[in-house]
Amino acid sequence: MINHFCSSPLWESSKTLAAAAQGNEPAQTVILNARLINVCTGEILPHTDIAISCGRIALVGDAKHCVGKNTVVIDAQGQYIAPGFLDGHIHVESSMMGVGEYARAVVPHGTTGIYMDPHEICNVLGLDGVKCMLEDAKRTPLKAMLTTPSCVPAVPGFEDTGASIGPADIAETMKWDETVGLGELMNFPGVLSSSDHTHGEIAETLKAGKIITGHYSMPETGKGLNAYIASGVRCCHESTRMEDALEKMRLGMYAMFREGSAWHDLHEVAKSITQHKVDTRFAVLISDDTHPYTLMNNGHLDHIVRRAVEEGIDVVTAIQMVTINCAQCFQMDQDLGSIAPGKCADLVFLDDLEKVHVTKVLIDGKVVAENGSLTEQLKPYSYPEWATRSMHIRDAITPESFQISAKGNEVTARVIEVIPARVGSYERHVKLAVKNGLVESDPLQDVLKTAVFERHHETGKAGFGFVKGFGIQCGAMASTVAHDAHNLLVIGTNDEDMALAANTLIACGGGMTAVQNGKVLGTVPLPIAGLMNDRSVEEMSGIVGSLGEAWKKIGCTMVSPFMTMALISLACLPELRLTDRGLVDCTTFQFVPLFLSE
Amino acid sequence: MINHFCSSPLWESSKTLAAAAQGNEPAQTVILNARLINVCTGEILPHTDIAISCGRIALVGDAKHCVGKNTVVIDAQGQYIAPGFLDGHIHVESSMMGVGEYARAVVPHGTTGIYMDPHEICNVLGLDGVKCMLEDAKRTPLKAMLTTPSCVPAVPGFEDTGASIGPADIAETMKWDETVGLGELMNFPGVLSSSDHTHGEIAETLKAGKIITGHYSMPETGKGLNAYIASGVRCCHESTRMEDALEKMRLGMYAMFREGSAWHDLHEVAKSITQHKVDTRFAVLISDDTHPYTLMNNGHLDHIVRRAVEEGIDVVTAIQMVTINCAQCFQMDQDLGSIAPGKCADLVFLDDLEKVHVTKVLIDGKVVAENGSLTEQLKPYSYPEWATRSMHIRDAITPESFQISAKGNEVTARVIEVIPARVGSYERHVKLAVKNGLVESDPLQDVLKTAVFERHHETGKAGFGFVKGFGIQCGAMASTVAHDAHNLLVIGTNDEDMALAANTLIACGGGMTAVQNGKVLGTVPLPIAGLMNDRSVEEMSGIVGSLGEAWKKIGCTMVSPFMTMALISLACLPELRLTDRGLVDCTTFQFVPLFLSE
Repeated sequence: MINHFCSSPLWESSKTLAAAAQGNEPAQTVILNARLINVCTGEILPHTDIAISCGRIALVGDAKHCVGKNTVVIDAQGQYIAPGFLDGHIHVESSMMGVGEYARAVVPHGTTGIYMDPHEICNVLGLDGVKCMLEDAKRTPLKAMLTTPSCVPAVPGFEDTGASIGPADIAETMKWDETVGLGELMNFPGVLSSSDHTHGEIAETLKAGKIITGHYSMPETGKGLNAYIASGVRCCHESTRMEDALEKMRLGMYAMFREGSAWHDLHEVAKSITQHKVDTRFAVLISDDTHPYTLMNNGHLDHIVRRAVEEGIDVVTAIQMVTINCAQCFQMDQDLGSIAPGKCADLVFLDDLEKVHVTKVLIDGKVVAENGSLTEQLKPYSYPEWATRSMHIRDAITPESFQISAKGNEVTARVIEVIPARVGSYERHVKLAVKNGLVESDPLQDVLKTAVFERHHETGKAGFGFVKGFGIQCGAMASTVAHDAHNLLVIGTNDEDMALAANTLIACGGGMTAVQNGKVLGTVPLPIAGLMNDRSVEEMSGIVGSLGEAWKKIGCTMVSPFMTMALISLACLPELRLTDRGLVDCTTFQFVPLFLSE
Repeated sequence: MINHFCSSPLWESSKTLAAAAQGNEPAQTVILNARLINVCTGEILPHTDIAISCGRIALVGDAKHCVGKNTVVIDAQGQYIAPGFLDGHIHVESSMMGVGEYARAVVPHGTTGIYMDPHEICNVLGLDGVKCMLEDAKRTPLKAMLTTPSCVPAVPGFEDTGASIGPADIAETMKWDETVGLGELMNFPGVLSSSDHTHGEIAETLKAGKIITGHYSMPETGKGLNAYIASGVRCCHESTRMEDALEKMRLGMYAMFREGSAWHDLHEVAKSITQHKVDTRFAVLISDDTHPYTLMNNGHLDHIVRRAVEEGIDVVTAIQMVTINCAQCFQMDQDLGSIAPGKCADLVFLDDLEKVHVTKVLIDGKVVAENGSLTEQLKPYSYPEWATRSMHIRDAITPESFQISAKGNEVTARVIEVIPARVGSYERHVKLAVKNGLVESDPLQDVLKTAVFERHHETGKAGFGFVKGFGIQCGAMASTVAHDAHNLLVIGTNDEDMALAANTLIACGGGMTAVQNGKVLGTVPLPIAGLMNDRSVEEMSGIVGSLGEAWKKIGCTMVSPFMTMALISLACLPELRLTDRGLVDCTTFQFVPLFLSE
C-alpha cells in the first residue's frame, strides 16, 4: 500500500481537501505567488499559489479564496517551487551517520524522501539492525522508505557476513509499513542462473505488489540484461556507460544515473539522454553513497541536479528525474513526486533555478527546513548497546598476520586495480619480488598488500591480495566499512603499519583509519555496527575531512579514497575483488589463486 | 494486485524467462526482424527481435539464440510492432453487444486490453449484471479489466434506476480478481460537497490501492476541478476544450482524450499537446462509447490513433497514448503497455504506420487475430434468462400518455438542445403554442416532445420535456438505452408515433426504434437489459446501420443520432436533462419547471 509516508492517508483527508480547495473551509497553509516547476507537463508556470490541508495539496492555481483567519500564508515572492526531491537509491550507512543525522543533512537541501537500502547494517546485524535504522528514521520528517536488503551476503558462498537474508525474510518485511520494495538485487548471477533463492525473493516481492530494485553492473546489454529485467527488476543504478543507461531505458527499466561522493557516473551516463532524442520518463538521478563531507559542502540531490544541468540536461527534466520519474518508478506517484491536488505537500523553494539553491523545504505541509537548517531539533535516538559490539575477530592481529608466502624469486600476482571515481576495478597481472619466502607491497609499482579479516563470528578466516591505484608510498589504512560483508579490510605498504591500523579499529569498535610509521594520522570511529556513529553531520564532516587529509599526506590524491577502498571486497562488481575467503574473479564468479605462476 | 491479466504471473515465470532470454531453454515464440515501436523511449528501432515464453516477453533485441526446435518463429519482415492497445475508458454496452462479440470486433484492430465500466448494465441489473459481463469476457482473449461502476444512480435523487451502488458494494468488488479501479466518478457534485456516500466509495478504492477514474464535465478548471482531483481522482475523459485537458494534465490528472462514435472531442482537445510544448505522459486516448457500425467500418483504437495523427500528434506519441501512458495511469505498467522483458506479450503488428493498419495481434504470446479476424472461434455464452426481462413499466402507454398540459395560448419552455458530436447540451428557452390546453411538438422550430418512463420497478413515474437539434419533421424515436438509468426514452413529433415507438420496445424487451406515420422504420432489439443483444458484430453493424438510415429518412442528419438521443436523460452532464422524475438543471443540480411562465 502506498499511503504510509504522509501525515494522513488520502482516504481520510479527501473530504477536507475538497472543502479547502473550494474555500468552504480555510486551508492550513497557503503559498502565494510561486513559480511552479510543473513536473507533470514539464513547464514552469508563474504566479501560482498552492493551498494545503491535512498535509496534502488541496489546490494549485489561484488560492486566495483558500485563506482563512488561521491560515498560515507564505509569500513565495516569485521563488520557484519544485516537488520534494526523492533519492531512488541510497545506503544511508555510507554517510557514516544514522538516519536522523542524515536527514538533518539532506532535508535542508530539498530531499524529502529516500528509498533506502540498509544492506550495510543488515550484513552486520541482520534485520534487527534494519529495525534500528527505521526507529532512527521515525524522529525525522524525512520519508525514509525501505527497500529490504536482498543480497545479504552480497555474493553467497564468497564471503562471510554477520547475517543472511532469504525469501522468508523478504516475505516478512513486505508486511512492514515502511517497506516499498526489494533492495538492489546485486546477485545477478543468481537471477541469471534461475536460482530458487534469488527468484524466491523476487516472487515474495512481486506477490506483495512491490518494486524490485536492481544492480546490473556488467558491461553487457544483451541476453544477460534482458534475462535480468525479464525476471521483474524495475530499475538499476549501475550504468557507467552511455549505452548501459540507454539500453536499460529502451528495455523499460528505470535507469538511475548515479552521482555519489566517490562514483561520478553522470558525465558518461547523461549522454544517454543528451545525445539521444529519447523520452526521459525512465531516467532518474540517485546518489547511492555519499559521505558527510559531500553532504556538507556540495549538498545532496540539489548538487546532483546541478551536475545534471552541467552535463547538458534541461533543468526541468533534471528535476523530473528526482521527483515524478522516481515516484513513478516506485508506483508511488499517487502520493509523491509532483505538485498536484491530493499529493503530499512536500515542496522545495528555490531562489535560483540555475544554481538549484534551496531556501525552504516543506514536508507534509510543514516548513521543516529554512536557509540550510532544519527548523526543529530532532528528538534524540540512541542505537542499542548490542549494535555497538560488532568486532568479533578470533585471532590477535600482529605484523605477522599480514605475511604472504611464495616460492622462488618472483611471482606474477593478480592485482585489483581501483578506478578513480568509479565502482569498477580491473584485474592486472603484476610481477612482484619474493624475499625470504615472502611477497611484500611494492610502492614503486603502486602495489599494496591487502588483507580481509572476518569480524562477525570469530571464524578466523582471512583473505590476502594486492591492490593498485591508490598511489600510497608509506603507511597503511584500515576500514570496517568494506562492502558488503564489512569485514576488517586493511591495505598498506608495511606489515607494522597494517597491524597498527587494524588494531586501532578493533579498539574503537570499528571505523576507518590511516596510519604512517607507527603513528595514527586520523581515525573515524564508527562504533555502530562498525559503520556509523551518532555524531552530528558537522562533526562527522570535520572528522572525515581530516581522514581525507591523512590519505593525502600518505600520497593518495584520489577523490574519496576510503569509499573506493571500501569496495575492494565487493564481489558483485567487476572485475577482481578480495573477500575474507580469498580472491574472486567477479566476471566468472570463481575464486582464483593470488599468483598466476602457482 | 497487478498480475491477473496474464497467462501466468511474473513470479511464476521469472525463472523460465531468465533461461529463455539467455537461450538456456528455447523460447515458445520468437518474432524476427520487426521495427519496434519503443514506447518507453519514444523511438522506432529497426531490426529488432522479440522472444516470448510463458506468455511474456523474455528478450527484446537479437533473439536468434532463443530459437529452439519447437519454437514458433514469426518473421515480421520489417513490419512495425507496437504494444497491445489499451482503451482506458469504455462502456462495452454502448456497442449493444456483450463483451464476447465486442472482443471479436476490437481485438483484430489491435486492442488487447480494456478498462471497462459496465455502469449501463449495473443501472439496470446491479452487480449481478456486471458479473454476467465478466463471465462473457472470460471466453475472450481480450483483457477486460473492471472499474466498478461508482455512480448507480448517476445522480442520486434525480432518477430511478434498477439498482444502486454504495461504498459497501465498492469494498466488495475491490476484492474481485477483475477489478482494477473505480468507474467514472460522475457524481462530482457529491465529491465537491464532501458527501459521505461518494467519499466512502473513494475511500474503499484508495484503501484497496486501486485507481479512481473520473468524469468532470464542467467547463471550469479552478476550485472545482482542484477539489475533484484532490479527492483522489486520477483521470478524466470529459475534456471537450483544449484548456480542460491542458489544465488536467498540469494538475497531475491523466487527461483521456475521447473519440467515440458520437463524441468527437479529439479535434479540440488534441490542441492541448499540439499547441503547447508539454510532456505528454499524462495524455491518453480512449473511446468511451462506440457502436458496432464504427467498430466495423472505422475500427477502434487504431482509428483513434489515426485521428490523433490527423490532428497533428506524432504517431509514436499517439501510440504511447494507448499503451504506456494508459498502463501507467492504472499503475499496471509492470505488466502492460510496453514491449519490454517481463511484460505480457501483447503485441500489434502494423504493415503501415501512417495508416495504423493492423495485420496481426498477439495476446499473452499467442496469435489471436490476423488480417482482421480472430484466429479462433469463441466459446458461446448466453446471458441468463432473467437478464432479458428488464421492461417493467406500470401503465399501458397510449398516445394520451404523452400529453403535456399548459394554460393560456403560449408558454416559454425550457428546451434541451443537443450538440452534434458532443456530449453536452444547452438550455434554450423557446416559445411554444398552447392548443386545447396542450403543448405539442413544433417541428418548424425543431422542437420535439420528449418523455421518460420509469422501467425498472413499475413505479409509474414519468418525466416530460422538449428537445431541440435533431431536425426531425415527422415521426418518433424510442430507446431503452437512455443513460444512465436506461429508462424508456421517447421523442417525437406526434403522440401516436411516440406511443407506437414506446410499445414496439416494450414488446421486444428493449432496444431502439424509429417510426413514422404509424409504421416502424427500423428497430434494434436489445433484449439483454434493454441494452445489448447476442448477435454478431457484423449483424449488429447492419441493423444499426439500418436504424441510422431510418433516422435520416425522418430528417435527422446528425452523426450517431441515437447515441446523442441516449444522453438526453444523463443528468451528470450540462446543461439541461430530462429524467423520469422531471427536468434537471445540471449546472446547479435542481429540478426546474418545464415552463418559465409557470
